Amino acid sequence: MNPYQLFYWPGLQGRGEFVRLALVEGGIDYVDVVRRPEAEGGGVPSLIRLLREPSGLPPLAPPILVAGDLVLAQVANILLYLGKRHGLAPGDEAGLHHANQLQLTVTDLVAEIHDTHHPIASGEAYEAQRVEAKRRAAHFTGARLGKYLGYFERVLEGSQGRGCTYIFGDSPSYVDTSLFQIMMGLEYAFPRAFSRVAPDMPRLRALRDAIAARPRIAAYLGSSARLAFNETGIFRRYPELDEA
Amino acid sequence: MNPYQLFYWPGLQGRGEFVRLALVEGGIDYVDVVRRPEAEGGGVPSLIRLLREPSGLPPLAPPILVAGDLVLAQVANILLYLGKRHGLAPGDEAGLHHANQLQLTVTDLVAEIHDTHHPIASGEAYEAQRVEAKRRAAHFTGARLGKYLGYFERVLEGSQGRGCTYIFGDSPSYVDTSLFQIMMGLEYAFPRAFSRVAPDMPRLRALRDAIAARPRIAAYLGSSARLAFNETGIFRRYPELDEA
Repeated sequence: MNPYQLFYWPGLQGRGEFVRLALVEGGIDYVDVVRRPEAEGGGVPSLIRLLREPSGLPPLAPPILVAGDLVLAQVANILLYLGKRHGLAPGDEAGLHHANQLQLTVTDLVAEIHDTHHPIASGEAYEAQRVEAKRRAAHFTGARLGKYLGYFERVLEGSQGRGCTYIFGDSPSYVDTSLFQIMMGLEYAFPRAFSRVAPDMPRLRALRDAIAARPRIAAYLGSSARLAFNETGIFRRYPELDEA
Repeated sequence: MNPYQLFYWPGLQGRGEFVRLALVEGGIDYVDVVRRPEAEGGGVPSLIRLLREPSGLPPLAPPILVAGDLVLAQVANILLYLGKRHGLAPGDEAGLHHANQLQLTVTDLVAEIHDTHHPIASGEAYEAQRVEAKRRAAHFTGARLGKYLGYFERVLEGSQGRGCTYIFGDSPSYVDTSLFQIMMGLEYAFPRAFSRVAPDMPRLRALRDAIAARPRIAAYLGSSARLAFNETGIFRRYPELDEA
């Protein structure tokens, strides 16, 4: 089979990174198309072409995974597809729906993190909504951050109670790799708020460390394939949005 | 088999309504637990109990569907489960992922609609974020509304090009019933903005009318089981948030 093709905006981790981490952990062959040179069929034009001239159901936005004839969008949808096929999700139906449920809660959290810097208009610059961003970010760090992380900590507590190292067993699911990214990103974007809540999240911290030490993930994180966090992605370090 | 149990906040349609409409269209037996009297095991305490003392994976928030031993949360996850079982989604894997993809785009839209009246803090009153809400709603009606509806219109155009009456064939999927609710809710919340964009969405309007005329849906909409739109749900009519 040809390798999967991933299409995502170049230059930022963004939502595409949740797909990349699962592909890496699963040892799944993929081409990060848009990051290849235009002369080799990559670049932003390759993404625009896919959005404008789809075969079958048009995707609204990247990330997009092309798997043979199938073109899939929406992170949680792509991960569900990969999870089933590559051992990155439970094999039984109930477990698969639970993985999907958790990933949709990650999706909600990602949207809230994005909106800390874009509370008014996703299409306009941060600088045009800075005042509102400060208010929204204060609510996020003060009320939402602890609520979400506390929830995932409780999920991990349940998993450990069932003897699982990771959420669903002895190897990581795509939810585990996603929670790794959440922990890394929150620490990058909100170092002060993160350091306040992190002591209450020992299981999430241990999960983050365990995922970072997985051989394929460790190699990926040390390579140029892993983009650095920056202020064009979901997780942005604007010190004025962090806690005092 | 025992009927499904649906748990959702009483008194509003909210996200629960997307699940209800699919259950109704599918002719699926269910109990709307929280809306039953406390003396009969209903009321808000029944929901709080489920959130606090889950068996298995804890849900973070309603709507929650209980199907025997399985407790499922997240609208798109519940609909995926029901869709597979009750003919409310394509039977093939690619089609099922496309239904899921579209429903996740509906989910994104619902979150944006919610945030028009709660752009700063989901846990605080609208009145405490009215100024920001005006700015966010102007961006929503001016830029996002047409973008989302135009996208779904384009999806329907593709379906009709393949000879389908509904998105995936000759009978409604849960995506079709969800788009019905989106159209009804947007017209309720933003009557002026909706009337501006609606002429460009003939297929979405025809879909809305076709779903409304489905026998089970029509009976449901005429019954007391269908709650009215109101200002505690996702779709709220605050005239100051609509276009001039």
